[in-house]
Amino acid sequence: MAADLTAAPLIERHRETLDKALTAIRTRDFWSPYPEHPKAYGDGEAGKAAFDALLGHPFQPLLDQTGTDSWTGSEVSPYGIELGVEYPHPDPDVLLPAMRAAVPAWRDAGPDTRAMLCLEILARINARSHEFAHAVMHTSGQAFTMAFQAGGPHAQDRGLEAVAYAYAEQTRTPDTADWTKPQGKREPIRLRKTFTPVPRGIALLVGCNTFPTWNGLPGFFASLATGNPVLVKPHPRAVLPLALTVAIAREVLAEAGYDPDLVALASEQPGEGLAKTLALRDEVRIIDYTGSTAFGDWLETNARQAQVFTEKSGVNTVVIDSTDDYRGLLANLSFSLSLYSGQMCTTPQNLLIPRDGIQTDAGPKTYDEVVRDLAAAVDGLLGDDARANALLGALVNPDVKARLDSAPSLGEVALASRTVPHPDFPDAMVRTPVIVKLDGAKPDDEAAYMSECFGPVSFAVAVDSTADAVDLLRRTVREKGAMTVGAYTTSPEVERLLEDACFEESAQLSLNLTGSVYVNQTSAFSDFHGSGGNPAANAALCDGAFVANRFRVIEVRRPA
Amino acid sequence: MAADLTAAPLIERHRETLDKALTAIRTRDFWSPYPEHPKAYGDGEAGKAAFDALLGHPFQPLLDQTGTDSWTGSEVSPYGIELGVEYPHPDPDVLLPAMRAAVPAWRDAGPDTRAMLCLEILARINARSHEFAHAVMHTSGQAFTMAFQAGGPHAQDRGLEAVAYAYAEQTRTPDTADWTKPQGKREPIRLRKTFTPVPRGIALLVGCNTFPTWNGLPGFFASLATGNPVLVKPHPRAVLPLALTVAIAREVLAEAGYDPDLVALASEQPGEGLAKTLALRDEVRIIDYTGSTAFGDWLETNARQAQVFTEKSGVNTVVIDSTDDYRGLLANLSFSLSLYSGQMCTTPQNLLIPRDGIQTDAGPKTYDEVVRDLAAAVDGLLGDDARANALLGALVNPDVKARLDSAPSLGEVALASRTVPHPDFPDAMVRTPVIVKLDGAKPDDEAAYMSECFGPVSFAVAVDSTADAVDLLRRTVREKGAMTVGAYTTSPEVERLLEDACFEESAQLSLNLTGSVYVNQTSAFSDFHGSGGNPAANAALCDGAFVANRFRVIEVRRPA
Repeated sequence: MAADLTAAPLIERHRETLDKALTAIRTRDFWSPYPEHPKAYGDGEAGKAAFDALLGHPFQPLLDQTGTDSWTGSEVSPYGIELGVEYPHPDPDVLLPAMRAAVPAWRDAGPDTRAMLCLEILARINARSHEFAHAVMHTSGQAFTMAFQAGGPHAQDRGLEAVAYAYAEQTRTPDTADWTKPQGKREPIRLRKTFTPVPRGIALLVGCNTFPTWNGLPGFFASLATGNPVLVKPHPRAVLPLALTVAIAREVLAEAGYDPDLVALASEQPGEGLAKTLALRDEVRIIDYTGSTAFGDWLETNARQAQVFTEKSGVNTVVIDSTDDYRGLLANLSFSLSLYSGQMCTTPQNLLIPRDGIQTDAGPKTYDEVVRDLAAAVDGLLGDDARANALLGALVNPDVKARLDSAPSLGEVALASRTVPHPDFPDAMVRTPVIVKLDGAKPDDEAAYMSECFGPVSFAVAVDSTADAVDLLRRTVREKGAMTVGAYTTSPEVERLLEDACFEESAQLSLNLTGSVYVNQTSAFSDFHGSGGNPAANAALCDGAFVANRFRVIEVRRPA
Repeated sequence: MAADLTAAPLIERHRETLDKALTAIRTRDFWSPYPEHPKAYGDGEAGKAAFDALLGHPFQPLLDQTGTDSWTGSEVSPYGIELGVEYPHPDPDVLLPAMRAAVPAWRDAGPDTRAMLCLEILARINARSHEFAHAVMHTSGQAFTMAFQAGGPHAQDRGLEAVAYAYAEQTRTPDTADWTKPQGKREPIRLRKTFTPVPRGIALLVGCNTFPTWNGLPGFFASLATGNPVLVKPHPRAVLPLALTVAIAREVLAEAGYDPDLVALASEQPGEGLAKTLALRDEVRIIDYTGSTAFGDWLETNARQAQVFTEKSGVNTVVIDSTDDYRGLLANLSFSLSLYSGQMCTTPQNLLIPRDGIQTDAGPKTYDEVVRDLAAAVDGLLGDDARANALLGALVNPDVKARLDSAPSLGEVALASRTVPHPDFPDAMVRTPVIVKLDGAKPDDEAAYMSECFGPVSFAVAVDSTADAVDLLRRTVREKGAMTVGAYTTSPEVERLLEDACFEESAQLSLNLTGSVYVNQTSAFSDFHGSGGNPAANAALCDGAFVANRFRVIEVRRPA
């Protein structure tokens, strides 16, 4: 039986979740309504079967999307299987007007109903987390557990967080107000005012290859909850997770009596460059993008009719000054470098280590010792093939492999990459990370460490001192951007230096992580993902600035 | 005796005002801490004397500003007197680094202290409202009472409103949070997190000629309250009101132990184009601008390193469909057209009237009758020279006079402009507004009514029907932008058409104003000034979007 999606029962069903999310973003304690463990969602066989059933033919749930002129798709899983799914390719001159025509009813629905329908969409996505996990795994190359968590509940958390921010922002101004201005002994002046959040226009979501849902759902829900139709243009190698998202959203919207074309998918022909075409359409007034700096910069420069939210590339740094838990440092950092083969926008790249060594609870360690011990820790972590596969996942595309293969030419290799055989997917390209030693003072080396080398490549950069490391950190963030900064120190003075650097260069700092929280992971409702204040991203997930300009408030005033 | 500006007494003194402002922006009822009547501030002689004492020599309070390489100023009052004041012209290579150096202490002061010091600045500006009134009058050409109210308490309201939004936005995330993630039977993971609002960089305020404080204070205080130094580049014809603002801010900052160079003035040499130079400096990360569309567009296109908030030109429309208070309509509209000689960004320009006439409580009125009656109402309102001078003020600059003089060439003149002699200032250019009849269907006329004709010129545009008027309204807002839309109708269906048009084109709508609230006036804490969603302005005064991206939140997390 279909759920009752009329306003009252819907609001009743989801109000508590929204309220808890609103509380969580104010307290920033841990909270999630979506369990992160796969076992919370059954044995997963139904999800696997649902995924399998999607393969090899046109994506049925989007057959009814308006303005489809052809079907296209060429996804090949990083694990080697061809997905063989085809998706709608739009005629923008038909689809975009249809999406605009759906706006008035969605605008008039108001912030409450929109939030609750977004929560219903999220609830249905959540219920299908196993299906999403396979879709994310076979597009991003993430190992199954990570695909499940980061592509499922954690992405849903980020989507819900965006709904909460959007709701709070729209409702900080009341629907109506009575304005009474005293006039001394005369009658006061009275006006009746209404305040209506109105959407900007069509929101274009340009998806990425590595985290199609985690990076996609925040913008998707921020735009939809603020009244904008959302056109999803996925990365051509990672369509399926977003196609499922679009399909579920359309299903909920239609059941609730709204036009399903409020959400649509735009799949592109190989080499078409559809994002460029869509980004310049006058109907498109919001763009969310995750990907290369080159295209992000292009969007910011050219899509002037739109609010453009970008997450681009950066160079993440870890400063290693000193520690009272050397084993913890090595364990934590080796995990960070290994997770998803370093293919996270948050993975550390440059490890800045004083060339004279560091103080630790296990005695002083020279630069060479630290690098050697870290290499050994990574080796130990990934020594077992099953565990290596579960952590590394597969290389997402040939470009990553090419960078990995050429990394040894950049300097002395402290840890060589090895190929890990995958028991189920012989064509999967699974590789352990490489660590290359560089000298912070050498110009040739600088060319390497001052560029993003996306993938399982990190640089152990010898610096003259911790002060030198902080200077290099500042310069790196300012010139190249950073999604994360990590640091290890036992010195309050060094902490203060690092904090000042991060305050002034606008970077998020994780200090002395030695347990099971990693610099490359953030938790929705509590951690900000990126700062929005350095070249790596012009927005943070999620804050007021991420939602406040997706709508405008229109006031109508009349004599009371 | 100087006020105690240490944190505790300061917070005690201003907390209630801030709390009331925070309440006001949520309820949007009438509220102001700053009385609008000049009599509330004494007889004004001290203020007049203070203003007179400023004239004819370098502006003493800014003698201590860092990096001044020369003094410059060429203000001539629209009332004919030369101000003869000179102001600091900066060497940006000295001043900007000094402003940046002042940032860390101001950032570390935190949102509470910053808000309270902003309120102290506002309190001191408020106490000098008479002095500001003369400064605004003799730079903008506003009549004294308007210069007092709009340039004084109403501008201060807008400044305080920006402080309230900035404070709310910065404090929605807590300073610190404990994050505890349950781990089943194992110990939970605990992190300690700090969240610090950090400024973007130097904020450049580019002032305008007509409303130096009203349009300037919101951006000024939004930036300062969020931790950014503010560099004020006034319009060369309207420096004094902002120089006073800068001086008072510096005085408060210095008394409280902060570097006064957090706020500085940049006066420009004639023809220098200093705003362009400053706008492209890498240190400048926020720009607030009010002025021409040409330069606003230039800023948005070129100052890519900055968040750019612009209020540009637009074409404001009033749709006249029907009324149950014809006299009230005429009285209200004639006042709106006359106030400050139509030199408000909110003054109606195009009055759309069905060519077959309208229904009123005084019987049906033809297009010609409506235009004739409106002309008569303006004539009546301005028939007395003293009253005319008190309403009109002076033409702000020769460009306005040139447009007024050439208006009769555009069509049939329904109301001719007359020159009003000023009893005190014989050189003041005081002129009553002109109303020109145009035909909405004629392409030649369209060229006139689809362009902004800033000043005391309005067009009575004959349209085929109210539906035609709404279509033209939509097109005008979409293509030219609008700060205000007004309409008169007794029909709920027409109201709905107008509301839909304003929702879809993002314009602020005033319906059936027939009393003493005018379409060109907005009230801080309740009304939004502009929508930020059409070409007239990319921001509204004041909302979350106006403040949210002036700072970023930097998180530092550590194991607890």
